[in-house]
Amino acid sequence: MSGTIAHPLVRAEQERLRTAAADRSGWPGAVPPAGVAAPTSVEEVVSLMRWAHRTGTAVIARGAGTGLAGGASGIDGALVLDLSRMKRILEIDVEEQLARVEPGVITADLDAAASAHGLRYAPDPGSVGISTIGGNIATNAGGLRGAKYGVTRDHVLALDVVLADGTLVHVGRDTIKGVAGYDLVALVTGSEGTLGVVVGATLRLLPRPVRTATISATFVDIGAAAAAVSAITRSGARPAVLEIIDHATLAAIDALEGTVLSAQGGALLVAQTDGFGAEEEARVVVAAISSLAAAVEWSMDEADADRLLFARRRALPALEALGRPLIEDIAVPRGRLATAVQAIERIASEEQVRIFVFGHAGDGNLHPIIVTDTAAPDAPVPPAAQRAADRIFALALELGGTITAEHGVGRAKRLWAERELGAEVVALQRRIRAAFDPVGILNPGSTT
Amino acid sequence: MSGTIAHPLVRAEQERLRTAAADRSGWPGAVPPAGVAAPTSVEEVVSLMRWAHRTGTAVIARGAGTGLAGGASGIDGALVLDLSRMKRILEIDVEEQLARVEPGVITADLDAAASAHGLRYAPDPGSVGISTIGGNIATNAGGLRGAKYGVTRDHVLALDVVLADGTLVHVGRDTIKGVAGYDLVALVTGSEGTLGVVVGATLRLLPRPVRTATISATFVDIGAAAAAVSAITRSGARPAVLEIIDHATLAAIDALEGTVLSAQGGALLVAQTDGFGAEEEARVVVAAISSLAAAVEWSMDEADADRLLFARRRALPALEALGRPLIEDIAVPRGRLATAVQAIERIASEEQVRIFVFGHAGDGNLHPIIVTDTAAPDAPVPPAAQRAADRIFALALELGGTITAEHGVGRAKRLWAERELGAEVVALQRRIRAAFDPVGILNPGSTT
Repeated sequence: MSGTIAHPLVRAEQERLRTAAADRSGWPGAVPPAGVAAPTSVEEVVSLMRWAHRTGTAVIARGAGTGLAGGASGIDGALVLDLSRMKRILEIDVEEQLARVEPGVITADLDAAASAHGLRYAPDPGSVGISTIGGNIATNAGGLRGAKYGVTRDHVLALDVVLADGTLVHVGRDTIKGVAGYDLVALVTGSEGTLGVVVGATLRLLPRPVRTATISATFVDIGAAAAAVSAITRSGARPAVLEIIDHATLAAIDALEGTVLSAQGGALLVAQTDGFGAEEEARVVVAAISSLAAAVEWSMDEADADRLLFARRRALPALEALGRPLIEDIAVPRGRLATAVQAIERIASEEQVRIFVFGHAGDGNLHPIIVTDTAAPDAPVPPAAQRAADRIFALALELGGTITAEHGVGRAKRLWAERELGAEVVALQRRIRAAFDPVGILNPGSTT
Repeated sequence: MSGTIAHPLVRAEQERLRTAAADRSGWPGAVPPAGVAAPTSVEEVVSLMRWAHRTGTAVIARGAGTGLAGGASGIDGALVLDLSRMKRILEIDVEEQLARVEPGVITADLDAAASAHGLRYAPDPGSVGISTIGGNIATNAGGLRGAKYGVTRDHVLALDVVLADGTLVHVGRDTIKGVAGYDLVALVTGSEGTLGVVVGATLRLLPRPVRTATISATFVDIGAAAAAVSAITRSGARPAVLEIIDHATLAAIDALEGTVLSAQGGALLVAQTDGFGAEEEARVVVAAISSLAAAVEWSMDEADADRLLFARRRALPALEALGRPLIEDIAVPRGRLATAVQAIERIASEEQVRIFVFGHAGDGNLHPIIVTDTAAPDAPVPPAAQRAADRIFALALELGGTITAEHGVGRAKRLWAERELGAEVVALQRRIRAAFDPVGILNPGSTT
């Protein structure tokens, strides 16, 4: 392929094409796409999709390019639809507690706008400051508050979607409940641009919690920290945030920040409870873990919260300072967190690669991060790192978990997703995909 | 059609066929189905589906027959799959807070089993004591706690589904988060037996709240009660239950129970807050509504809760005592509750029918109940009642709402669902349906 695209909205400067070929996954964008269009209206998206459908051109919808699975990477011959310029917050409806937005809105910007009215957009992916709502919807992004507040899907009420042939449809509704017809909102959310292009979203907002308690606890080792997660689960508390950080990551943070976290313990848990009962719920959490922890500190104070969350905030930057991170995203049943982390340590040692683990323990969601030497960002992943990643995926499935909890399948994990889902579910998915896009122009090679 | 079905698991006694032709919707089951099978295992369902697929026989999956939209009503020539005998609770996993169940489990039985471990199955449809989990999944049933805890879909982690051709697939996963592939759990939930037969479910359980506050408030009229709903929304409180009852319903309860509710006010709100902060949150609710209410009473005590919830509990029985109830199920944006109830009163007066309204105000979900004279339960709905129902549906759409918030489309509301969704979404739904069931044997005539 590699032809040029003749459409008035499409640009093809080399630099633009090169950028559109990559995301933050390290997935190789060997050949750049043929063109990039950055529409500013629904009408322009409709026009571009009609043109693509007529010409059989592959279309890859893209937000901020912060994806971690190659799902929005431009490929040979394709048109990349860069939706980052459609970034208006169209409405914050305080009475109905909902927002109407274009897909290119940065997620943190929406939350800030809601905040001015005492409201909150609850999902908070780690990328909240750099990723778009459209990208969050495409991947069904999770985040730190998933265990209590759910994931992106749980906060999307309605979507405007341009289908493969350029038809604009509205799915879902403004009311919280509604069962007229299939749940197409949930089907499109997480479909990584393979079923349609999301050009508008109606999102649910929630009251900001009146208060938040933050708890930080160190443990001798990851086993004790994982036991504490189970103890919290049994306690009846439902923390909004429950993060786990392993010893290797603590050492990396120390190296970057000059802290002494890795000397204080072998693993760290950081938790937040929120709402009217935040303080009592925090006491329940502290009581549940006190006999398991080496040290526990907690506070109702916001300044303290920043300090107690510091390690979690600096985890990824600390790893990025060490080399090139390959960010994985498994989930396992919560009771198997320790088994998973210990097995990952074994994989790191056997494959002679550096693997760091932190994640959302309340969901059983771990981010094993394989750090390779700093190289050209588009250099191929070294074989040992790839072997380690494959063993981590196999581990997740062996423990009854998933190969991707919140980052998506994209191009990077397609074969592993098929292994997880099985041939019959994959076949069903492909039939559903064909029902939306019989010609097969939407994000080919991604997802399923 | 009306032939007989020759399969060793299929029965065709007249009484059995007649029962399988009806649900609680009043939708006319003019001609009974050809046969009923009540399988006791997944293998039997697979065998029956293979046979139905081979012979092109329509299959209607059915739980307890408590549906309110004719979605599980046996039709001419069809095989009804009665799943009520597959009612084992296979596992309550306390550590992972999940349950594995067969579809025929009565929802309240699951909650009782979870309760023994300090856990709760959060969704609580009004029919919780008589409907099955499989039916709840088929309709994506809502309930009283929807505003805070969501609906059935939000608590289903994984499903075992027998497809139209007899293929058994497992969709979803045991972990709370997971984005490998499309969200087929959400797609099947609410699909009313048109995409497959659910033969097993993995459900999420939550800790039972440590305490619950119950609030009851009377208002001069429905407008003041609706204003109170808005005030609660603005207050930052998030009640688990927020029910509204109109004056006509209060009078019906008085007639049945000898109470004097209708003399105390023109409308009633009943709310519950729960969790660690229940008491403070209740105070916030009370403060938000005190200037709008004629009287407010609240308590942290369980015995008081039963008394304060009494009116809500007796609402439907009181209407059933008056005649034959046609139970509708609209939702409107919360800010339009008063407009909706007032318009319904106008419709009742103009059409000369008795309409009573109560519902889940926190979701904007109203159940206008048209009571007609007690007649044979399978007599057709009188024309005036049908006209009133049609006007209520039109009203819901006019106010930006939905014609069914939690009961489903079934056969009774198919044309109205099409009007709500629009031709293009309906066409998309039918393509999805064909992707699952190309021959079209699953619940024909229902849903879309």
